[in-house]
Amino acid sequence: MTDRRITKVKTGYYRIPLAEILSDAKHGDHTHFELITCTIECADGYAGTGYTYTGGKGGRAIYSLIEDEYKSGLLGQDSSKIRDIWQSMYWDLHYVGRGGLVSFAMSAIDIALWDIHCHRLQQPLHQVLGGASDRTLCYAGGIDLNFHIDKLLSNISGYLEKGFEAVKIKVGKDDYKEDVARVEAVRELIGNQRVFMVDANYSLSESRAIEFGKAISHCNIAWFEEPTMPDEYASYGRIADAIDIPLAMGENLHTQQEFELAVAHSKLGFVQPDASNIGGITGFMQVAELAKLHGLPLCSHGMQELHVSLLASQPHAGYLEVHSFPIDQYTKSPLKLHQGQALAPTNPGIGVEFDPQLITPHLVKSS
Amino acid sequence: MTDRRITKVKTGYYRIPLAEILSDAKHGDHTHFELITCTIECADGYAGTGYTYTGGKGGRAIYSLIEDEYKSGLLGQDSSKIRDIWQSMYWDLHYVGRGGLVSFAMSAIDIALWDIHCHRLQQPLHQVLGGASDRTLCYAGGIDLNFHIDKLLSNISGYLEKGFEAVKIKVGKDDYKEDVARVEAVRELIGNQRVFMVDANYSLSESRAIEFGKAISHCNIAWFEEPTMPDEYASYGRIADAIDIPLAMGENLHTQQEFELAVAHSKLGFVQPDASNIGGITGFMQVAELAKLHGLPLCSHGMQELHVSLLASQPHAGYLEVHSFPIDQYTKSPLKLHQGQALAPTNPGIGVEFDPQLITPHLVKSS
Ligand SMILES: [Mg+2]
Ligand SMILES: [Mg+2]
Repeated sequence: MTDRRITKVKTGYYRIPLAEILSDAKHGDHTHFELITCTIECADGYAGTGYTYTGGKGGRAIYSLIEDEYKSGLLGQDSSKIRDIWQSMYWDLHYVGRGGLVSFAMSAIDIALWDIHCHRLQQPLHQVLGGASDRTLCYAGGIDLNFHIDKLLSNISGYLEKGFEAVKIKVGKDDYKEDVARVEAVRELIGNQRVFMVDANYSLSESRAIEFGKAISHCNIAWFEEPTMPDEYASYGRIADAIDIPLAMGENLHTQQEFELAVAHSKLGFVQPDASNIGGITGFMQVAELAKLHGLPLCSHGMQELHVSLLASQPHAGYLEVHSFPIDQYTKSPLKLHQGQALAPTNPGIGVEFDPQLITPHLVKSS
Repeated sequence: MTDRRITKVKTGYYRIPLAEILSDAKHGDHTHFELITCTIECADGYAGTGYTYTGGKGGRAIYSLIEDEYKSGLLGQDSSKIRDIWQSMYWDLHYVGRGGLVSFAMSAIDIALWDIHCHRLQQPLHQVLGGASDRTLCYAGGIDLNFHIDKLLSNISGYLEKGFEAVKIKVGKDDYKEDVARVEAVRELIGNQRVFMVDANYSLSESRAIEFGKAISHCNIAWFEEPTMPDEYASYGRIADAIDIPLAMGENLHTQQEFELAVAHSKLGFVQPDASNIGGITGFMQVAELAKLHGLPLCSHGMQELHVSLLASQPHAGYLEVHSFPIDQYTKSPLKLHQGQALAPTNPGIGVEFDPQLITPHLVKSS
């Protein structure tokens, strides 16, 4: 019998500068993103790489969790028992976990195990997961709150030129009427057929969110993302009752229980898990099942190069976010669009292979 | 005007062995606890030390959060603006935070700032916070699930000899009837007047928790702590409806929003925040206000040497847990009991000064 035990765990911590400063209403200016990779090797010669990322902070603590806490327990484990390992990781750090940074560290490891699994099966991820399709609807997610209106519009035009048929902008200006004007200008630019979302990064009060939601109701908005604090599940429900635009959230929910609370109380129109912070592919697929059960389209946040396969595999896929952190540009196969849809990689594995030439210059430390 | 700016932040990471292996139903064997200290110095010469702890895992990541993420932002801040700094810390790491490890790191820093604040006022913490009393009811919290019944009882006898008038034991044996027998034996040993609690460390199913709660209803149990998963707020509510014993939780809730959900849905009889993981004294006091609003006695988890002052300061104080991680034994003034109550330190500051002779041998790294 093949020996699938884990023989080596190698962690890398990278800080990758953005081409320009990007801002949203709650996190302020982004200058870098952090990338934490985890490569796992097995006795049978198979290996896989998983990863997680942050908006620039906390990455070294994630590195510590993988290296100092999880690594020794992973060595010698059967790499094919992905769900057992996931449970062990969850309980092992439960006291300091239940979401937060531990979910990020678990994600990187879990994704590496799925990469190994797909390599052993000689199948691409979207097929391994059930393969509803090989492509998915997608949108360009701008981090553009700091862009002057002219630049905002030229940025959107750039998305259209690249082939996007759906776009999202940030909102949350001090004066919400400025947001309304920006939304109206973008809608005018893209025409009435294209899909258009807005994202407040939980910067608004409930009453302001309702006021703003009503003020843009004529702009045919597909969803209003994170109007208020992600923890305020019931507040989302009240906003949803008061406005005509569906709500969306998920990037800040890092446990299954948080998603359950959101689905139960927040009257969402879309869910947006992120495999980098919900416990990897295992965690993402649990949310996918929850969404299916409740008739909610499954969307995503960030790491488009991986989520494209996850969404393509699901019959209830909504829209893939093509995030402004261009992780895919540091891989050997950046995301490809075709007729406004994103194409899932067809090579065996998760379809995300980092290009050493591109990422090594940004390596800060590794094991 | 005095210059209260922060000039130095020094972090220490310690691994402190327990005198013997201690077990509970969900975390397994404890051999060590981790102590992470944060000493902050100010331009006016005042300094303070805060800290957090874990059951043995995640401490290096907490160290990283303080050193790599928070430190540079703290330098130069006005140390007296504790609430501003708290908010900044919360939002600065929100994307990887909202509880989890970030709450632990924030706690150590926040407690250091309160220590400085109390030193400047030349007052002990319980006075600075409003000083309802200088003492509080307390109980000895055993981590004793692995103890044979004989040892369990001799351990409880030891607590009584030390002057405790209230005790708690762990439950969650594979066969719950064994738990019932242990509970009955302890109740018989301590007599009917003393206060007695049980703690399942969320190891039970809802139905098992109800079954067990009914099976010990004749034992006059003050509270049943963490019967099921702390995230399952509604499950707690159903258990509370089904049994006669009040429920308690809090050590695993690391944000104000989690406590709000628990208070709203879990029908608790007691709340048990822990200043080491709810965002320090600032976070603990927010939970204290929430508990007061809902008529709930305020209890605590762990770090008795600090919580004694927090509980003593509050009119709605319940029971201080004197935890089996003996952090207070590594300070210059270990917890003192008088007629079954714990006495708050009366020296200026938070009343927790680590003894270098006792902790330095366990130092792993420091800045
Ligand atoms: Mg967003
Ligand atoms: Mg407990």
